[in-house]
Amino acid sequence: MYRWAKDFFPICRSITGPGVRETLRNIQNILPKLKIHSVPSGTQAFDWTIPNEWAIRDAYIEDESGVKIVDFRDHNLHVVGYSEPVNKWITLEELEPHLYSLPEQPDAIPYITSYYKRRWGFCLSDNDRKSLKPGNYHAVIDSDLKPGVLNYGELILPGAVNQEVFLSTYICHPSMANNELSGPVVTMALVQWLASLENHRYTYRIVFIPETIGSIVYLSRNLDHLKKHVIAGFNITCIGDDRCYSYLPSRDGNTLSDKVAIHVLKHTDPGFKRYSWLDSGSDERQYCAPEVDLPIATIMRSKYGEYPEYHTSLDDLNLVTPTAMKEGYTALKKAIEIIEKNVYLKTTVHGEPQLGKRGLYPTLSTKKSWKQAQTMMNLISYCDGKRSLLEIAELIQKPFWDLISIMEKLLDNGLLQVEVNKTEE
Amino acid sequence: MYRWAKDFFPICRSITGPGVRETLRNIQNILPKLKIHSVPSGTQAFDWTIPNEWAIRDAYIEDESGVKIVDFRDHNLHVVGYSEPVNKWITLEELEPHLYSLPEQPDAIPYITSYYKRRWGFCLSDNDRKSLKPGNYHAVIDSDLKPGVLNYGELILPGAVNQEVFLSTYICHPSMANNELSGPVVTMALVQWLASLENHRYTYRIVFIPETIGSIVYLSRNLDHLKKHVIAGFNITCIGDDRCYSYLPSRDGNTLSDKVAIHVLKHTDPGFKRYSWLDSGSDERQYCAPEVDLPIATIMRSKYGEYPEYHTSLDDLNLVTPTAMKEGYTALKKAIEIIEKNVYLKTTVHGEPQLGKRGLYPTLSTKKSWKQAQTMMNLISYCDGKRSLLEIAELIQKPFWDLISIMEKLLDNGLLQVEVNKTEE
Amino acid sequence: MYRWAKDFFPICRSITGPGVRETLRNIQNILPKLKIHSVPSGTQAFDWTIPNEWAIRDAYIEDESGVKIVDFRDHNLHVVGYSEPVNKWITLEELEPHLYSLPEQPDAIPYITSYYKRRWGFCLSDNDRKSLKPGNYHAVIDSDLKPGVLNYGELILPGAVNQEVFLSTYICHPSMANNELSGPVVTMALVQWLASLENHRYTYRIVFIPETIGSIVYLSRNLDHLKKHVIAGFNITCIGDDRCYSYLPSRDGNTLSDKVAIHVLKHTDPGFKRYSWLDSGSDERQYCAPEVDLPIATIMRSKYGEYPEYHTSLDDLNLVTPTAMKEGYTALKKAIEIIEKNVYLKTTVHGEPQLGKRGLYPTLSTKKSWKQAQTMMNLISYCDGKRSLLEIAELIQKPFWDLISIMEKLLDNGLLQVEVNKTEE
Repeated sequence: MYRWAKDFFPICRSITGPGVRETLRNIQNILPKLKIHSVPSGTQAFDWTIPNEWAIRDAYIEDESGVKIVDFRDHNLHVVGYSEPVNKWITLEELEPHLYSLPEQPDAIPYITSYYKRRWGFCLSDNDRKSLKPGNYHAVIDSDLKPGVLNYGELILPGAVNQEVFLSTYICHPSMANNELSGPVVTMALVQWLASLENHRYTYRIVFIPETIGSIVYLSRNLDHLKKHVIAGFNITCIGDDRCYSYLPSRDGNTLSDKVAIHVLKHTDPGFKRYSWLDSGSDERQYCAPEVDLPIATIMRSKYGEYPEYHTSLDDLNLVTPTAMKEGYTALKKAIEIIEKNVYLKTTVHGEPQLGKRGLYPTLSTKKSWKQAQTMMNLISYCDGKRSLLEIAELIQKPFWDLISIMEKLLDNGLLQVEVNKTEE
Repeated sequence: MYRWAKDFFPICRSITGPGVRETLRNIQNILPKLKIHSVPSGTQAFDWTIPNEWAIRDAYIEDESGVKIVDFRDHNLHVVGYSEPVNKWITLEELEPHLYSLPEQPDAIPYITSYYKRRWGFCLSDNDRKSLKPGNYHAVIDSDLKPGVLNYGELILPGAVNQEVFLSTYICHPSMANNELSGPVVTMALVQWLASLENHRYTYRIVFIPETIGSIVYLSRNLDHLKKHVIAGFNITCIGDDRCYSYLPSRDGNTLSDKVAIHVLKHTDPGFKRYSWLDSGSDERQYCAPEVDLPIATIMRSKYGEYPEYHTSLDDLNLVTPTAMKEGYTALKKAIEIIEKNVYLKTTVHGEPQLGKRGLYPTLSTKKSWKQAQTMMNLISYCDGKRSLLEIAELIQKPFWDLISIMEKLLDNGLLQVEVNKTEE
Repeated sequence: MYRWAKDFFPICRSITGPGVRETLRNIQNILPKLKIHSVPSGTQAFDWTIPNEWAIRDAYIEDESGVKIVDFRDHNLHVVGYSEPVNKWITLEELEPHLYSLPEQPDAIPYITSYYKRRWGFCLSDNDRKSLKPGNYHAVIDSDLKPGVLNYGELILPGAVNQEVFLSTYICHPSMANNELSGPVVTMALVQWLASLENHRYTYRIVFIPETIGSIVYLSRNLDHLKKHVIAGFNITCIGDDRCYSYLPSRDGNTLSDKVAIHVLKHTDPGFKRYSWLDSGSDERQYCAPEVDLPIATIMRSKYGEYPEYHTSLDDLNLVTPTAMKEGYTALKKAIEIIEKNVYLKTTVHGEPQLGKRGLYPTLSTKKSWKQAQTMMNLISYCDGKRSLLEIAELIQKPFWDLISIMEKLLDNGLLQVEVNKTEE
C-alpha cells in the first residue's frame, strides 16, 4: 500500500483534469475491473453543475533576477486549485492578494482551491512569504479552464446476493498523504482482498471519485439503485497516520455500518474518538443527506480538519506509515468481515444443550468450570433468533471475531441454526 | 412591570372577595379585553365546592393599654386568610392557639390561610410574639364569610389557527411579590406584546385565577375545549427574583412546553435548576392531572416552596427587581416565539445544495471554510421533514433564535420548504 | 429456618440418590402438601438424559498403617460426587490424579463432581494433601451407579386466579450452607407463610429440584403450562450469609420479577450488587433459555461463584446466620407481597380531590403543609390507569410497602379505583 501511495503522491489531482485521470488509470492497472466514467462539464447533478475541466501545466513566481521563488514543479500545492491562467509582471503589493500562507504554521504550504469562482493564486509557506522583498514579480500560471469531463472510477464485485456494501473514497487532492492518499490505497487493498475471496455474500460497489461534486454526480446517476440495495458502507479517508482511531457516524447514527464501526473500534482501540454527525464534512454529507440516507459511516485515524497537518504540505508521506496504513486496512477488513458473517442464530434445543457429551464443556465440575465455558454458554443463551451475532457480541462484550469459531463449532454440532431469511440492514 | 407590581402589592387578595376583584379590575384597565367571570359560592367543580366569599375590613390585637400590637393595616399578612369574625378580650394563654409565627425566621410574618375550615388567627413575627407579656388582649377581626362569588379573569387573542397556547397565572395571594405578583405582571406584559403583534399563528388563552380552586373551576367549565385545542402552555409564577432559573415539568415531562422550556433555559442560564414532577405544587397539578393532561410546564426563577422568603412578609418588592422581572419576561417571550416559529422543514434538493453560487458559502476553500458554514450546513442536513426546527436546534446545539435568520435565508433561496401540515403538539 | 439448615446439613445430597430423597422427605414432614416425583434414569429431557442414580455408602483413603487419612464420614465433600466404586492399593503417584485440592485455599476441601463421565476421586485440603508421604494407599469408594430415578419435590398453592408465581430452589449439594441450604429452608419458610394467608391472588408453584438436570426435567414436563401461567418467579439460592445483597436479572432483564427484585433491594440495601445476565449460572439459565423465557430473577446475598467459601467446606453453618437468613426471607417475602398487591389505579375525580374535607390534608395552609401531604398527592397524580402501583412507587421514589396504607385509605374514600382487568406480567 505504501508503495502505491508513493507512486500516486506526486500527481497533481483536482476534481477534474489530467491528474485525476492519471490516478484512475494507475488504479485500473492494479484493479483491472475498474471502470472509468466521464461526465461532461455543464452536466446538472441535483443542485450542482459540473464545472469546466482544469488542466495545469506549470506555475511559478519569478523575481526580477529571474529566480523562481515559488514553483509548482517543487510542490503542486503551490498553485491554488482551479487557478485561471495568468502571465504578468506585477508589484509585490499587487501580488499579495493572490498569495496564501498560514501564519500559525509558518513552514507549511496551505492547500487552497477555488473550484466555482474564477481566481488565480499561489500558496507558500509563511516564512517564504515574509522573505519577499518589494519589487516586481512575474506571476505565471499555465493552466486551462474549459469544457471537458469529470471522471470517476467504479468497480463492482458481485456476491451471492444483490444487496450491496458500498465503499467510497476520493481522488481529487494533490500531494497530500493522509487526506487523501491513504483512502484510495487502503480501498485498493480491500478490493484485492475481496476479489481474492472464494465467495462472498454481499455485492461490493467501490467508487473512486472527486469529493463532494463526485459523490453528488454519482448519487444523481445511481440514487434509486443505491437506496434499494446498499445495506452498509464506508467512506474511506484519513486512514494512514498512526494516531488514535476516529469514528464518524452516519446521519442516522444507528445503521449497521455504525454498529460495525463502533464494534471494531471498541475492540481495536478502546480510546478511539467518537465524533458526531455535526462534525461530518466529507462525502457522508451527500450519502446521508435527507432522502438519500444511505447507511454510510466512517472509520478513520486522525479525522480531516482535526489534525495539524490537515490540508497543508505537512500531510506528507512521513505522516502516514506503512504500519499505520496496514492497521487501518485491518480495521476496515474486520468491519467488512463482520458484515459478511453477521447472521441471526437460534438454538435447536430447549434449555441449555448438554455440551459435556460433545466435548465442549469440562466433564469435571469444579469451582471454575463455569467460567471456562462462559463465553460459549452466554453466546448460546442469546441465540433466540431475534439477535444478530453482532448484537450478541455486544451483549456478551466480546469481539465478533472471537465468536466466529465458537459459532461454527456449535453449528457443526447442530446446536444452532442460522435464520436464513433474517438479515440486519 | 415593576410599577404594576408596586400598585398591586398592597391589595389584600384571597381566593375570593373584594381584593381579587380589585386586582382583576386593575388588570382590565391595562388589558381592556379581559373578561371577568363570577361563579357563585356553593357551585360544585369536580370534587370541590366553591367556598363562601371572604371580606376583610380590619383586624388587630390591642393590649390593655389600648395599643394595637398587631395590626392588619400595617401588613395584610397579619390576619390568617379566611379568618371568621372575632371581637373579644382574652388572656395571652387563650390567644396563643390563634397566633402563628416562624421561630426559624424570627423577623418574618408568615402567610397562613384556612379556606375550608372556620378558624380565626393572627400572624406575626416570632420576635414580636416573644415580646408579648401575660395579660388580656383584645382580638378583633372585622370580616365576613358569606355566600358570594369566586372571580377570575380570562382573555383570548385569536390567532391564525384555533390551536391554543394557554397561559395561567394566579391572583389570590396578599402582599407578596415573587409568589405571586411577578406572575400576573409578567403575564400582563406578555399579553401586551402578543396584542401588539401584526399576526400570530396560535390563539392565546390567558387566565388570571385564584390558585387551585380557580384552576379547578376553570377546568370544570372548559375541559373539553382545552383538551381539544391547547398545544402548549405555561403556569406563570415566581418569575421576579434574580436567582437562578428553575424548570418544573408537566406530568408527562415531554410535551412541547417542556421541550421549549428546557431549550430556552439551557441557552439562557445553563445552570438552571431542573425540578421533577414530584416537586410540583401549583396549578400544573390540576392542568396535568390524570385525564386532564394539558401540556403545561413552568419556567420560574426561585421556585415556590424552595426559597427562604417564600410565603412570608420577606417575599416583598425588594426580593423582586425590575431587571430580574424583565429577564423572566424575556425568557417566557422566547418560549412563545419558539412555539410560534417552530416548523417542520424539508430540503428541496437531493444532496447538499451548492451554497457558494448563492453567496452562502465561501467560494475559496481553505482549512477553515467548512467551520464557517457549519451551522447552516448542519441545519440543512437535518431538514428531512421529520424534525421540527426546535428538534434541529437541539441536535445542532444552537439556540433556536440563532437559527431563525438562517432558516429564513434558506427559505428565501428556495432551498428549504415548510411542511405545512405538520406541527408538533 | 436455621434449625432446618442444621438438620439438613449432614445429608449427602447429589443430583440423584438416597440423600436427595431423604432431604425431600424431611421437607415433606414440614410441608405436607409437597409431592415427590420420580423420573427414571435414561429418560430424555430436551437435550439431556437422566443419568444413573448414585448411592454412596462409604469412602476413605487408608495409609499403610491402617489410618484413614481421608474419610467420607468426617465430611461428605471428601468424595468426588458421582464417583464410581474403587477398592485398591495404589502408590501415592497413582493416587495423585484422583486427588483434588485448592492450593489458593489450603484449609478448604473443594466440592467436585463428575455427573456425566465415570471417574473416581477424593477431595481434601491442600495442607492435608501436602502432608501425604510417598507409599501405598488404600483407596476405597463404596458406591453404586445404576439405573434408578431422579427425584424432585413440587408444591402448588392455588390462588384466586390461575396465573402463577414460580419459586424454584435446589437440593443437590452435600454439606454446604449458603449454596445451597439457605435456598430450600428460606423457600420452606415462604411456603409456610403463604399457606398461612387467608387468601392470595396468585397461584404459587414451588419446586425443590436438583440444579440444572432437575430444572431441565421439570421444564420438559411442564413447559407449556409454565409459559402460559407464570407471571413472575424467583430462583432461591445463596440467601443466608450476612454480606451485601445481589440481584441477578432474568435474560430479558425487564420482567415483573426484575422490577420487583430491584425495587425491594434498592429500598432494603441501597448498596446491593447488580449482576448481569452474563453472570448467570444457576437454574435461571434454563428458565430463561430462548423459547422458554420464564420471568425468573434472583435475589441473593453473596452470589454463587463470587464469594471465597463458594463450593468448599468453608461454606458451612458459620457462614450463614439466623439473622441473615431471616432478612433474606423478609426480602423475598416483600417481593411476593409486591406481586400480590400490585394493581393499576385510577382516580375517580378530575383534577385533584379535595383531601381536606376528608381529613387527609391539613386544613391550615402553611409554608409546609404541602410537604406533609406530598407522598399522597404525588401518588394520586400518577393514578391514571396506565401505571401499576409498583411503577408509581418507582416514580415517586418510595418503597412500595409504604404506599399500601395510603392506597387503601384512598380506595376507602372512593378517590381511587382499581383497574380490575389490568395486570402487569
